Amino acid sequence: MASTDTPDLKARLTRATAATAQAGLDALLVSPGPDLRYLTGYDAIPLERLTCLVVPARGEPCIVVPELEVPAAEASSVGDLSIRIESWPETADPYALTASLIPEARQVAVDDHMWAAKVLALRDAMPQAHQRAAGEVIQGLRMRKSAAEIEALVRAGEAIDAVHAQVAGFLRPGRTEREVGADIADAILAAGHATVDFVIVASGPNGASPHHELSDRVLRSGDTVVVDIGGTMPSGYCSDSTRMYALGEPSAQAVADMEVLEHAQAAAVEAVRPGMTCEAIDAVAREILAEADLGELFIHRTGHGIGLETHEEPYIVAGNQRILEPGMAFSIEPGVYRAGSHGARIEDIVVCTEDGVLRCNNRPHELVIVA
Amino acid sequence: MASTDTPDLKARLTRATAATAQAGLDALLVSPGPDLRYLTGYDAIPLERLTCLVVPARGEPCIVVPELEVPAAEASSVGDLSIRIESWPETADPYALTASLIPEARQVAVDDHMWAAKVLALRDAMPQAHQRAAGEVIQGLRMRKSAAEIEALVRAGEAIDAVHAQVAGFLRPGRTEREVGADIADAILAAGHATVDFVIVASGPNGASPHHELSDRVLRSGDTVVVDIGGTMPSGYCSDSTRMYALGEPSAQAVADMEVLEHAQAAAVEAVRPGMTCEAIDAVAREILAEADLGELFIHRTGHGIGLETHEEPYIVAGNQRILEPGMAFSIEPGVYRAGSHGARIEDIVVCTEDGVLRCNNRPHELVIVA
Repeated sequence: MASTDTPDLKARLTRATAATAQAGLDALLVSPGPDLRYLTGYDAIPLERLTCLVVPARGEPCIVVPELEVPAAEASSVGDLSIRIESWPETADPYALTASLIPEARQVAVDDHMWAAKVLALRDAMPQAHQRAAGEVIQGLRMRKSAAEIEALVRAGEAIDAVHAQVAGFLRPGRTEREVGADIADAILAAGHATVDFVIVASGPNGASPHHELSDRVLRSGDTVVVDIGGTMPSGYCSDSTRMYALGEPSAQAVADMEVLEHAQAAAVEAVRPGMTCEAIDAVAREILAEADLGELFIHRTGHGIGLETHEEPYIVAGNQRILEPGMAFSIEPGVYRAGSHGARIEDIVVCTEDGVLRCNNRPHELVIVA
Repeated sequence: MASTDTPDLKARLTRATAATAQAGLDALLVSPGPDLRYLTGYDAIPLERLTCLVVPARGEPCIVVPELEVPAAEASSVGDLSIRIESWPETADPYALTASLIPEARQVAVDDHMWAAKVLALRDAMPQAHQRAAGEVIQGLRMRKSAAEIEALVRAGEAIDAVHAQVAGFLRPGRTEREVGADIADAILAAGHATVDFVIVASGPNGASPHHELSDRVLRSGDTVVVDIGGTMPSGYCSDSTRMYALGEPSAQAVADMEVLEHAQAAAVEAVRPGMTCEAIDAVAREILAEADLGELFIHRTGHGIGLETHEEPYIVAGNQRILEPGMAFSIEPGVYRAGSHGARIEDIVVCTEDGVLRCNNRPHELVIVA
């Protein structure tokens, strides 16, 4: 399914061509994944056979496709865009074919997610060409979202909010994280997502592991539970939101942690506007936690960009002096992690707008007490 | 979930170390994905932060892990294996850290699926080291399955056979491919798979595209339908099987194609035994189709290896002179594709044994006529 319509895709390819030339590159080489979907709408499956969009700095893009994938490529938006298809039969060398399309190339960029085996085969097929990561070019385009992309992220936010509205009903002492996670996964699909990307149900001490997923731990009264969930919509755009739940009476420390965390998260969201740097947004959350002596327990960055991938540019992290612009979309998700005890995190997706911030997630932020 | 138990994993790491030295490599560098799961049992999520197992040709393996993933890594089989964890805080440079662990390395191999951005960052962090693809080492281990792995593939085969047993009930004139696909996806999970990896329902002319997935095409009486489906079991091992269905009376040509295809597929399966080459197995199917003037319509290889990935070594393709050994597992899936009309494919997963072949899929091969 195309992430947008043909005129938008044509404009993206034009911008990518210009950005390629401007970066001093002779060509972009893009294999199946989010970059290919962004540039062409073609949602090809990443497999071992080489499919590779070639975007030269001068000239028309074309796409190298295994012979057996040609009908799928033609039926996709690659057909609508009239991108020339260079097909290769099963026993041919697609790397030599790709190299032959850009024989003069000295500087090429490969998409950030291209598989190593393909990167190295391309390196060997065009030994005169220095390889760089295409992120420097394509992330620059992808991180500035169009109105249609922002709309898609808002729809994704509504869908995951609808799941969080049901989570309290899934949580009960005696159930395992895995059982709760299965209900959440069903709800993610029922809310309109095409795929479930991740389901974190981190109860009690498991909450202290930011990327704990699901275990057979049985929920107990008194647990706080980190629920961090997301999926991909049929549009290709992703959702990602974290809320905190407690089974019965939470500990005084969990309550105190949450109070500071709510304040830190809200302040960072409110700080979002054009002209702020990514690291300044990170610092807003970090300083509030540090003032409450929780700085050491906030062991990750404040957020990540989101779009056709759950994690993409811009990263909201110390050292990232990138300046926010309208259309940039990212998470704001400070956390507090107490090993052996519990963890807490609150996460919204937000979009930087001309005059401030648009929230894609709108569920209440406080600890939800499940009676 | 570990794909096997700790002693097996220790033996794999030992074999990987020996194979690394034998290949003239100083180290293997393995990011999250099937190779990491095979070597350590750690089913880490592939994300932009670097997680990287370092297997030096001489010395003990260790693993570079983002600080926030340390609890997840420790809770995984990485903890059971006592692999040393080198963690990096959010704003540190994990590539410099990785390079510092193997300062003398001149030849390194990166796992075949490592993301390009990581491959190139490692290249820049260790400019003295030439990079190769680790497949030459790790696929050599992974393609020789243990008894436990073969057992896991047999269980996966039983699960997908149980889905094919239900497919005729999902097919009805008036339903769309997408509706049928949704029922199949539910059945794949209900049969015990942890994830649905692909669902191809290619009806009528769509069958002529080998990798057609699902469309809104409405099924009609007289259609033949290619149903090629697979998922990953909780063990990590994959299923993949194709059967052919017809809604009511199929065309005479579809019946004739199927007759030859059944013969070609069965003959290729029966030819599997130690000592045969991969290309010889491919040739068995290809020659039978060619004798019936269908050779030009069989536009892909006969099969692919399977295990922790749906597609891995050994590939059953012309030009691959690899000799089959006991424990090698792969698909046998010849097909016939008539553009604008229909397609046909029959696929089983088989394992080469000491004295012949073990079939993981055991549903009948003939065209299933849905009344």
